[in-house]
Amino acid sequence: MSCELCTADGGTVLWRDDFCRVVRVSGEAFPGFCRVILARHVREMTDLAPAERDRLMRAVFACEEALRGLLAPDKVNLASLGNQVAHLHWHVIPRFEDDSRFPDPIWAPARRAGTRRASPGDAALARRLAELLA
Amino acid sequence: MSCELCTADGGTVLWRDDFCRVVRVSGEAFPGFCRVILARHVREMTDLAPAERDRLMRAVFACEEALRGLLAPDKVNLASLGNQVAHLHWHVIPRFEDDSRFPDPIWAPARRAGTRRASPGDAALARRLAELLA
Repeated sequence: MSCELCTADGGTVLWRDDFCRVVRVSGEAFPGFCRVILARHVREMTDLAPAERDRLMRAVFACEEALRGLLAPDKVNLASLGNQVAHLHWHVIPRFEDDSRFPDPIWAPARRAGTRRASPGDAALARRLAELLA
Repeated sequence: MSCELCTADGGTVLWRDDFCRVVRVSGEAFPGFCRVILARHVREMTDLAPAERDRLMRAVFACEEALRGLLAPDKVNLASLGNQVAHLHWHVIPRFEDDSRFPDPIWAPARRAGTRRASPGDAALARRLAELLA
């Protein structure tokens, strides 16, 4: 079995340790969209030991906090789906009332073109994550 | 401001304490679909203290574990979105390869009618949650 999150980073790495990594998802539709990806190949959160679940969520929440500080989104969406790639990863998605799908999830059909807005730079986001996850 | 998760349970309550509740989402499309809803009105996970975040996630993971035991889904989807109702709640959704949208998120357009399957009873789910969250 070949898993694309085992064989590649899955985006620009902003922060990593031996347990997980935070990557930036490219694309202008959802500025600041990041993913937190477990290093090893595990399918579900409840396949992790409780302390590992907490550790992964700490990275997810650090990501949310960093993005709120830099982007001030109207809402943050968090999701662990994995139907296509069953290797634990969390989507952390800043949402804006004028984005293409708000208030629907980003996986719903577009409602409008969506306002384009500036993205925080990778360096600023990486710095903030390093502070929060120190 | 009126919030529908402040003024009503939002589904059949399977488990609750003074901090959060687990409710069953009605509908046959996604059998076993539950939500974990924070008791008080808070917008984002990072608006909670770290210990409260962990406490809420423990309920989410208990829900995942109960549903895996009773339904053996092909995948479990977890999501905290809140774009429509910005009162912290987690969707815990058992997914099957023959459901109407797999491998897309449940918010994407349907791919097929989807195979109907039996749902675990509320009593069985409530009993398992009580054990896991004791």
